[in-house]
Amino acid sequence: MKLIRFGEVGKEKPGILIGEKRFDVSSIVTDYNEAFFENDGLEKLKKVLESNPVLPEVDAAVRLGSPVARPSKIICIGLNYVDHCLETNAPIPEEPIIFFKSTTALCGPNDDVIIPKNSEKTDWEIELAFVISKKASYVEEADALDYVAGYCLHNDYSERAFQIERGGQWAKGKGCDTFAPLGPFLATQDEIADVNNLRMWLTVNGKIFQSSNTLNLVFKIPFLVHYLSQFMTLLPGDVISTGTPPGVGLGIKPEPIYIKAGDVIELGMAGLGSSKQLAVAYSK
Amino acid sequence: MKLIRFGEVGKEKPGILIGEKRFDVSSIVTDYNEAFFENDGLEKLKKVLESNPVLPEVDAAVRLGSPVARPSKIICIGLNYVDHCLETNAPIPEEPIIFFKSTTALCGPNDDVIIPKNSEKTDWEIELAFVISKKASYVEEADALDYVAGYCLHNDYSERAFQIERGGQWAKGKGCDTFAPLGPFLATQDEIADVNNLRMWLTVNGKIFQSSNTLNLVFKIPFLVHYLSQFMTLLPGDVISTGTPPGVGLGIKPEPIYIKAGDVIELGMAGLGSSKQLAVAYSK
Repeated sequence: MKLIRFGEVGKEKPGILIGEKRFDVSSIVTDYNEAFFENDGLEKLKKVLESNPVLPEVDAAVRLGSPVARPSKIICIGLNYVDHCLETNAPIPEEPIIFFKSTTALCGPNDDVIIPKNSEKTDWEIELAFVISKKASYVEEADALDYVAGYCLHNDYSERAFQIERGGQWAKGKGCDTFAPLGPFLATQDEIADVNNLRMWLTVNGKIFQSSNTLNLVFKIPFLVHYLSQFMTLLPGDVISTGTPPGVGLGIKPEPIYIKAGDVIELGMAGLGSSKQLAVAYSK
Repeated sequence: MKLIRFGEVGKEKPGILIGEKRFDVSSIVTDYNEAFFENDGLEKLKKVLESNPVLPEVDAAVRLGSPVARPSKIICIGLNYVDHCLETNAPIPEEPIIFFKSTTALCGPNDDVIIPKNSEKTDWEIELAFVISKKASYVEEADALDYVAGYCLHNDYSERAFQIERGGQWAKGKGCDTFAPLGPFLATQDEIADVNNLRMWLTVNGKIFQSSNTLNLVFKIPFLVHYLSQFMTLLPGDVISTGTPPGVGLGIKPEPIYIKAGDVIELGMAGLGSSKQLAVAYSK
């Protein structure tokens, strides 16, 4: 299944994508939230859909929200691409680098990205994200995929000055509002033949900046579930983003390139669709 | 008002503390969660209580949960006590150091603290925490207290090896389950005459380790609300913990002291009550 959420900000309803068509499943499901995943919602929804119920179609012009409701946490992995390590002459990490992204950053895949007040270094990061399906604590790597609901496309926007030049941890540069456009959809595991071989690309104003493949992931999803669950309990609906390949603005030679108002950022991944964000300046 | 939540883990009900007595207000309020604070729940509850309704008393033996339901985020401030900076010869930070604590770490004030598997460096940190009352984005320092619901006692447990020796950010050592005992209660602002002059203490097995006063805070609450709201939207019910004074286990000379199973950690702050955690080893 491909799960979508559609409608106005804060009022999204659950839906599914079949081919190019979107259908409203709000008569079957309340939302794709912690309770949905915890109560075996994916299996139940699948069963209902197998009976071919009549579902209202949703117009293609309707806004998409994040394919999952606000989770308890968004955890990101740093420096997790072999090619990114090679490019930056950084050693491949011995164990994952992890950080949290504020869940208030979550937004729809095609929402505007808002450049924060006083930001001069807003940057992009295409990433493969996955969603947790059930409570995970001290999970063995061999069992880890039982805890994964599915996969989605994520742009881990990052304000590099806030992240690196403002003292201490990365939290300041990772959680600004609209810095986590997720989707267009959540693909359940069965939709993706090999999650470790997905082409991905990101362009800014039509020019390609990131181009890689999940083949280059240092730490794969089963290990990440195992690893993270040693430090905290992962809850159903939690989002984990696996890190970005080379080509972020910060790394561009001879001078970094950052996002300015009016820029259009587009990104896509094999099997997980594409998303597009227009950059706008914060205004109030 | 002093707000409490009582009952079994995950089934807590809202209550209030009057003197030493606890009362059940679940007939008036669903829970002390985001919706409660967002919809002016504090004012509404206060009004109802002014009419002296008959409320069921809650037995003193009933477990207390965190005084607020699981928030969208727990944000902590690092190195925020002048005396702590002096002790460690660290410069006073020019701006706040911030990091996230996994919200799954939240627990009741007197719950056991679980020493994680493979942990050898579980440490304590008494802190003054405050709770956000309404959505805060780009808030002026002069207006900041309008966004504060009240204050509570927090023990920001930290696994120092996970935090510092396992690569990258602090996230691994801060969010283990039971690492955020909050309470016993949330005191609304009117309950605390001067939040910048609160004595605090923490003992392990009856021996004093931390003893300070919020007088020593480098960055005070109004500035913290202003500052944090430049980087992300704070939501009603969010918890912000203001940092710890000297005397954590990591800083003890000649050798650090860490928590072992059987240890009893007690802490208290003027006007905010006290809490007590028994350390137990993880077992499954």
